Amino acid sequence: MTTLVPLQNHQIRLANRPVGMTTRENWQFTTEAVTEPVEDGVLVKTLSLSLDPAMRGWMNEGKSYIAPVEIGEVMRAGGIGKVIASKHGNFAVGDLVTGGLGVQEYRQFAPAEIKRHAISKIDLRMGTITQWLNVLGMPGMTGYFGLMEVGQPKEGDVVVVSGASGAVGQTVGQLAKIKGCRVVGIAGGKAKCDFVVNEMGFDACIDYKNEDVRAGLKTHCPDGIDIYFDNVGGEILDHVLARLRRKARIIVCGAVSQYNSATGVQGPKNYLSLLVNRARMEGIVVFDYADRYPIAIAELAGYLKDGRMKSREDVVVGLETFPESLVKLFTGENFGKLVLQVASD
Amino acid sequence: MTTLVPLQNHQIRLANRPVGMTTRENWQFTTEAVTEPVEDGVLVKTLSLSLDPAMRGWMNEGKSYIAPVEIGEVMRAGGIGKVIASKHGNFAVGDLVTGGLGVQEYRQFAPAEIKRHAISKIDLRMGTITQWLNVLGMPGMTGYFGLMEVGQPKEGDVVVVSGASGAVGQTVGQLAKIKGCRVVGIAGGKAKCDFVVNEMGFDACIDYKNEDVRAGLKTHCPDGIDIYFDNVGGEILDHVLARLRRKARIIVCGAVSQYNSATGVQGPKNYLSLLVNRARMEGIVVFDYADRYPIAIAELAGYLKDGRMKSREDVVVGLETFPESLVKLFTGENFGKLVLQVASD
Repeated sequence: MTTLVPLQNHQIRLANRPVGMTTRENWQFTTEAVTEPVEDGVLVKTLSLSLDPAMRGWMNEGKSYIAPVEIGEVMRAGGIGKVIASKHGNFAVGDLVTGGLGVQEYRQFAPAEIKRHAISKIDLRMGTITQWLNVLGMPGMTGYFGLMEVGQPKEGDVVVVSGASGAVGQTVGQLAKIKGCRVVGIAGGKAKCDFVVNEMGFDACIDYKNEDVRAGLKTHCPDGIDIYFDNVGGEILDHVLARLRRKARIIVCGAVSQYNSATGVQGPKNYLSLLVNRARMEGIVVFDYADRYPIAIAELAGYLKDGRMKSREDVVVGLETFPESLVKLFTGENFGKLVLQVASD
Repeated sequence: MTTLVPLQNHQIRLANRPVGMTTRENWQFTTEAVTEPVEDGVLVKTLSLSLDPAMRGWMNEGKSYIAPVEIGEVMRAGGIGKVIASKHGNFAVGDLVTGGLGVQEYRQFAPAEIKRHAISKIDLRMGTITQWLNVLGMPGMTGYFGLMEVGQPKEGDVVVVSGASGAVGQTVGQLAKIKGCRVVGIAGGKAKCDFVVNEMGFDACIDYKNEDVRAGLKTHCPDGIDIYFDNVGGEILDHVLARLRRKARIIVCGAVSQYNSATGVQGPKNYLSLLVNRARMEGIVVFDYADRYPIAIAELAGYLKDGRMKSREDVVVGLETFPESLVKLFTGENFGKLVLQVASD
């Protein structure tokens, strides 16, 4: 292999596993020379990376829905990149692709990885690069399949979604509106609440940082809740459980309020409401629906095109900001899907 | 109405709502004269009453799957009784019936109650009186529909059931065996564990009073758990959550470990296992399946008849023992379905 002089690949690797909130100390910064792709391989330059709450889970040891990132490994991250060298017939220099690029500037894809669809081309006519990391990316797929498959929304259902202005929440709330539901968001701060109501068409939004969530749910869901799409866990989940309707569905997508807890996860004290209301709480992992991503992407891209769905991304710039940018997801500082722009082209 | 001299109806009424464990102080003992049934009414003499953990919930104030018992009201209880006076064409003196008799010696059924099937005749060829309160009664129906509808057992599934020797647990475990599952019970004490394994054919049973449940589950469910029928809640639920298989189903039937907690219910800390394993936790209330009780009763009675299913009841005698007998359910002193025999015929 020849070296693509003078390309240097700056990388961020997991140095150690955090206890509680993740900090810069958890990361190691490395640099490697970039080489030519192998026969039938592809070299991708990272343009933008998706920063997601799930990353905090990948930093932990132990069994989960996906293997943990190992100590010393480049941090896992999905992203959009550009093919800058290709020895594979299906990919040409200049193609834009989505896939697991990792928190680094360049990534080689081996023939076996390409064979199992580790990268796929994106079409900017369907959405922008940041939208491909948001509504048309993993968060959008998570929202789409979580709501449609587990939530099974019916017209007139009352849908509550936490993390309402976040990546998954945006898709869930707007899609539920399109499906004829009444949608109540929960978000942190007036600006986010105003945004999902005024710009994204939610029926209401509760500001958990400044309002009593229990009282807000009573006001906005006087007859109870049919579907709760849970991105946060913690006390909000308990408040929702207390207001379930018969045969309600709770989609367990995440628990961002709990991921950095050094004392362990808080279990939902009101879980017996599932019994009283013959309700269901079910987990979703987006990868299970990979075969059907194209169908969901086509549907969501249609909504973006005809204006029935909007997207909002919060773009931070510079690979080196990764450690602090990631923390924003847990303090709620991001406003919209958090994207790390590594290179502009 | 004439008085059926010299019949006196001894009753037990809710005097006040317990905080923590229920005691004799929560009850009021009253006596009323028994009168003739009204036109199209029926008078039933209580033979045996079903004592169930759910009773503790009915003593609490507030919304649940059923209205609370009001202060001063005769305590709600299902039971088997004998018609001793009838002015209704469908019921004759001597008929044995099942229905909501209450914790009392006699109960009048008004025409409107009979119309909505508040009592129905039982057939002793299908099972004994105590079996009609157990496998063929509410516990059996709960186990049957919880397992079959929510659990959806498939051959080879690993099924765990807590309260294994109790009323619901017996039916769940034996039915799961009949359906081709591997069944692991959890019960308190060696005698109960031996019983469900040796007499009822469970594959294994973990004695939560003397064994480490976590280790026991690891031993007996090395590849994880497909179905958990939860009658107890608390720490055992957390241990099971930690061992779920993909697409596992947890039937939330009760939480007997939590009903008498004065400090509130303990939420399942490991609930995010639902996410990791794309698993489901769902509540069941037996009344929802009332239309299909006859189908389930016929099936279960068949198993009792051909010996594929056994039943065990723990019969306590005397209406006046009700307060202390009820407490047995929460200390685990009962061995089998707890039945209060009020009269022998």
